[in-house]
Amino acid sequence: MTDFVYGHWAIMEALRAGRRQMEQLLLTETVEEKGIVAEIVQTAQEKGVKVKRVQRRIIDDLSNGANHQNMALRCGGYPYSRMEDILAVAQSRGEKPFILLLDLLKDPQNVGSLIRVADAVGVHGIILQDRRGVGVTPAVVNASSGAVEHLNVAQVTNLVQTMRDLKDNDVWLVGLDMGPNVPPLDKADLNIGLGLVLGSEGEGMRRLVRDTCDLLLCLPMRGRVESLNVATVGAVALYTAWQARGWTGWVHA
Amino acid sequence: MTDFVYGHWAIMEALRAGRRQMEQLLLTETVEEKGIVAEIVQTAQEKGVKVKRVQRRIIDDLSNGANHQNMALRCGGYPYSRMEDILAVAQSRGEKPFILLLDLLKDPQNVGSLIRVADAVGVHGIILQDRRGVGVTPAVVNASSGAVEHLNVAQVTNLVQTMRDLKDNDVWLVGLDMGPNVPPLDKADLNIGLGLVLGSEGEGMRRLVRDTCDLLLCLPMRGRVESLNVATVGAVALYTAWQARGWTGWVHA
Repeated sequence: MTDFVYGHWAIMEALRAGRRQMEQLLLTETVEEKGIVAEIVQTAQEKGVKVKRVQRRIIDDLSNGANHQNMALRCGGYPYSRMEDILAVAQSRGEKPFILLLDLLKDPQNVGSLIRVADAVGVHGIILQDRRGVGVTPAVVNASSGAVEHLNVAQVTNLVQTMRDLKDNDVWLVGLDMGPNVPPLDKADLNIGLGLVLGSEGEGMRRLVRDTCDLLLCLPMRGRVESLNVATVGAVALYTAWQARGWTGWVHA
Repeated sequence: MTDFVYGHWAIMEALRAGRRQMEQLLLTETVEEKGIVAEIVQTAQEKGVKVKRVQRRIIDDLSNGANHQNMALRCGGYPYSRMEDILAVAQSRGEKPFILLLDLLKDPQNVGSLIRVADAVGVHGIILQDRRGVGVTPAVVNASSGAVEHLNVAQVTNLVQTMRDLKDNDVWLVGLDMGPNVPPLDKADLNIGLGLVLGSEGEGMRRLVRDTCDLLLCLPMRGRVESLNVATVGAVALYTAWQARGWTGWVHA
């Protein structure tokens, strides 16, 4: 499969990570090679990727009209990992597993934004329910500012089965939920082998996914608006979990 | 000044809050009055606001091509508050002040998203540096899901002076910053009279704003990507502060 990754940071991080087969960097005819554009072109050349100028409308088409910032990288499809790879990252770092699970999220912007935060807090990987949910499309790569190129993302056909497999590996599954009997985020010690589970926009987790969680927690709310965006809920939960882990792995410059 | 507020929740909350002068609710010719659309029309009629059908391109124009969801509310401009009003909200609730200050943010999506979270955690108000920063435009109202209609937002010409005035009212100013000597978010007790200060996308706080803060804190990061979106940083900081305040005002249904 061929992808057309677009946007400055998406392309830069895809080149730096070097995990995809790289075919060609396409630039619009008019963009000047200075600043970040020059850096990307130089990185491409160092990696042996050919650079080609094309008409803007070609890049418009290849990026489905998204804000491509005058460039697209023709490359192989996103290199998915397996659950085992994610657990191996935790083991190689000597850390308790820290995993984000997304049940059928639909908005590439939300998925990309969550992946960017997941990178910032150092999760060992991300697990997506495939088919009706969003996969790692170029829109997701762009919304993650390219972070996803450095992370392990597994796409599974049966999230509930994967959750059971994680439990067998001493991972506790904590679902973010709403509702009357759900305790707030700080009512549990999150310094554990942790899989944080988020449900889809509007509908939340599917019932069987929710029932498979070991624990449900909520983000309290006291305002007039009834819900928060799932990317906001996930960002707060990921940071709360990392704080509980004592900011493990943080190198304070 | 006349505003055209667009989008379901923006319009619904503007009608419910009832703080603006309401003139007319415009619907496209083809939208069906069912679900949330019917609820909005009913709310408008209860408030004595006339409902009119117009061609879609008129609403396209009035909302500058944004995703207006087939409706726009013609109404008075956003009713700004003063700093004193915000402090009065804190006092009337018997709570230590909890205020969000935004220094020259430029993206309406970020500002709206931050206001939505500010509403969720029960801040007493929001203070914006005016002129080069974003004000409460219809795009911000929409991005806040209408939350801003219920909140006190002050727009000030000199943020540094307002910060000094807040200090005189026992408000501690905590700036979110990056950099080598900035301690992490959990290194301070945020259960105080608190003004949380966020700087603009890319550039952060202006120097004098930063220097006027009592304390700087950072959000740790350990990933490959070098920065997080300001709306993400603000959401985590607002929730950390509210947690430190023991989820004051939360009614757990």
